[in-house]
Amino acid sequence: MPDPSYRRLDVDERRRQLLERGAELFTSNRYEELSMSRIAREVGISKSLLYHYFPSKQAFFEATLGAWAEELRARTEPDPALPPAEQLVASVGGFLGLVEENSVAYRNLISSATGVPEIRDLIAEVRHRTAERILAGIYPDGAPPKARVAVSGWLWFMDGACLDWIEHRDIDRDELRDLLIGTLVGALIATGSPPDLGGAG
Amino acid sequence: MPDPSYRRLDVDERRRQLLERGAELFTSNRYEELSMSRIAREVGISKSLLYHYFPSKQAFFEATLGAWAEELRARTEPDPALPPAEQLVASVGGFLGLVEENSVAYRNLISSATGVPEIRDLIAEVRHRTAERILAGIYPDGAPPKARVAVSGWLWFMDGACLDWIEHRDIDRDELRDLLIGTLVGALIATGSPPDLGGAG
Repeated sequence: MPDPSYRRLDVDERRRQLLERGAELFTSNRYEELSMSRIAREVGISKSLLYHYFPSKQAFFEATLGAWAEELRARTEPDPALPPAEQLVASVGGFLGLVEENSVAYRNLISSATGVPEIRDLIAEVRHRTAERILAGIYPDGAPPKARVAVSGWLWFMDGACLDWIEHRDIDRDELRDLLIGTLVGALIATGSPPDLGGAG
Repeated sequence: MPDPSYRRLDVDERRRQLLERGAELFTSNRYEELSMSRIAREVGISKSLLYHYFPSKQAFFEATLGAWAEELRARTEPDPALPPAEQLVASVGGFLGLVEENSVAYRNLISSATGVPEIRDLIAEVRHRTAERILAGIYPDGAPPKARVAVSGWLWFMDGACLDWIEHRDIDRDELRDLLIGTLVGALIATGSPPDLGGAG
């Protein structure tokens, strides 16, 4: 059903909403099962209006992935003026907010519900870049191999813990955030060369 | 090329080898791309001999998944006579041995290279059962929700850390094992209600 307030939305906002619904559709269905007609029907707009925003299904798909990556970056980008520990707390909090607001798309993305290679590659790339960013922040002189393994593993921990959280919803977001941070600290201690996270940034 | 020693192998051993190669083939190729002819060629036996062991591609595929799950279970099954901490160390060590010996299949399995739903479901199920087993072992009176989240996340950590390890091979297996155990302990401490892992089993 079209949203009655739809006509009042401006173009950017409409595009943003389409991308949000697109993320849900593309993560809940096999790519081949979606046509532009079906997408238009599911999001409640005409097919011609959908084509006005996105020239093809592939373009729409790529735009949803790009928007998701950009949103993730924006919400988790640390403020370099803060000490590393505070940067981490803020980034993890931002990430959990994104997960909470888009839990269906997130769950499907992470559990590779669709088997689409582009999604899998995007997740791997985001994890890779995030690990590098975290390692550069906490080991400015270069990270030892064990720390790299620990941070890489921790990014997977985060996804596994979030999937469990979304499924059960029996701990609150701040508890999860503290558990995630505590686990990273624990993993870095277990490497035998923990960084000084409390130090000035 | 057929292995010259092939004829001397007995039926069980031949079947075991086929399942091992099958795990590599099915995790490295899309299911549709594999035919019984191609599988026979890749493993270096005649198609009729392959059919002698497995009546269809689907049967072979299911047998490889079942064998992998069984091997994983056998290698990680803890000895209930040991204290929980020692059970964990032994299970993680067994898991890493399996990963090391089957690193190609493992990497492809975990990174969902093929997008096959059966593989994804099997991984989810194995993680679920493993989490339950670990939680029952360390929280015999029932695990608090945060501990469930922590153990679920940790099983993902293990896979993320193993993928990094396989890629770089710059830390040794025992170092990785200790890092994994240390991270689990750290995560459980971060839940605020850590179990007494040193207690008698």
